[in-house]
Amino acid sequence: MITDEKSRAVVLLSGGLDSATTLAIAIREGYEPFALTFGYGQRHAHEVDAARRIAAAFGVRRHLVLEIDLRAIGGSALTADTPVPKGGPGECAAAGIPVTYVPARNTIFLALALGWAEVLGAAGIFIGVNAVDYSGYPDCRPEFIRAFQELANLATKAAVEDARPIAIRAPLIEMTKAGIIRLGSGLGVDYALTTSCYDPTLEGLACGACDSCRLRRRGFEEAGVPDPTRYAGAGTTS
Amino acid sequence: MITDEKSRAVVLLSGGLDSATTLAIAIREGYEPFALTFGYGQRHAHEVDAARRIAAAFGVRRHLVLEIDLRAIGGSALTADTPVPKGGPGECAAAGIPVTYVPARNTIFLALALGWAEVLGAAGIFIGVNAVDYSGYPDCRPEFIRAFQELANLATKAAVEDARPIAIRAPLIEMTKAGIIRLGSGLGVDYALTTSCYDPTLEGLACGACDSCRLRRRGFEEAGVPDPTRYAGAGTTS
Repeated sequence: MITDEKSRAVVLLSGGLDSATTLAIAIREGYEPFALTFGYGQRHAHEVDAARRIAAAFGVRRHLVLEIDLRAIGGSALTADTPVPKGGPGECAAAGIPVTYVPARNTIFLALALGWAEVLGAAGIFIGVNAVDYSGYPDCRPEFIRAFQELANLATKAAVEDARPIAIRAPLIEMTKAGIIRLGSGLGVDYALTTSCYDPTLEGLACGACDSCRLRRRGFEEAGVPDPTRYAGAGTTS
Repeated sequence: MITDEKSRAVVLLSGGLDSATTLAIAIREGYEPFALTFGYGQRHAHEVDAARRIAAAFGVRRHLVLEIDLRAIGGSALTADTPVPKGGPGECAAAGIPVTYVPARNTIFLALALGWAEVLGAAGIFIGVNAVDYSGYPDCRPEFIRAFQELANLATKAAVEDARPIAIRAPLIEMTKAGIIRLGSGLGVDYALTTSCYDPTLEGLACGACDSCRLRRRGFEEAGVPDPTRYAGAGTTS
């Protein structure tokens, strides 16, 4: 039995604002974080770079970047050549689940995190999904997280044989974007290291127009926290 | 709506006896099969070769081989440098879940199959897990499959928005190895194309001693079907 060590937790780290805040929460709760990032054929390798900067800033001991070629599966504007929509979240919500939805993405990410958590002997998996200021993805809802917990309790040797279940933690799931930003600012998250834009410029500036940029910008405004994001063109708030 | 076409199904194809039989069942049920095989850093690329031969023999239109490096996660004798145990299934069962267990493997494979099934508009996913003549893996049990079905019903746009749930099918789950072999033989499965051995020779001969070889050999004996497997050394049945 490990007694003197901190409990380990796998933290899914996308390079975005939510997952950076989630990492800070896991650390505050006393876990030793093991960061897991996926290179999944998304348009934006800049997300992986952001994840590396965030992990380094928090002194994470091990940051695993796992490549899975979700382009082979296809089906999303984030992995394929479909244009990213810029109609704003309102229009997207009206039209249902947006084309930026990557089929079964969180199921895939949690499944891989579960495998690593079992190998590490981790007590938990942290994921920064959010069901409030979100884009309408079905795998960001509390009932999805609960169903994955049920699955994890049946799927792993850790839970079945060693009575050592792995807790699936989604601490942001009921929070607003503004609330997340306020909490993270208090925990020392440097949001300048994070990236949210679905469609940044070649120089790495955020477009300011995609769903993700709109949610992020509004979040900083509502939180009353200065937005460190570098936006392209006239849409800057600074 | 697609009306004139056959319903599609993703079939997980490992190259082994069970998944080849499962593919034959999906075809008999009238599905158009889309075969999915994982190159996951296992010792045995010969499994992927076997899967290709099986898919070709059944005239599968699309066979996707997806690489995921589960070695980066570690934790199993099938992906790491731990020796494969040869004590026989009896001893393994007594000692609990064997070291050949790959953490969360079926969770990971089903998650990726779910993503592809959604993109294809498939009605089902077929997986050849078996809870009778199996090696004690927690993710081969009926309750695991049921939990994954629950998750799939919540995780996908297909199920949530389009009321088009994806059925998780495990037709072999309650069958004996002998029963599987008899069924597959009747459906025209050429078992000479399949491979089961965890530790074959460089020439591709089965070791005849690992858990998987023992289960396979006994299955053919009990089924009264000639075993086409080429075993190494003195352990041949032919």
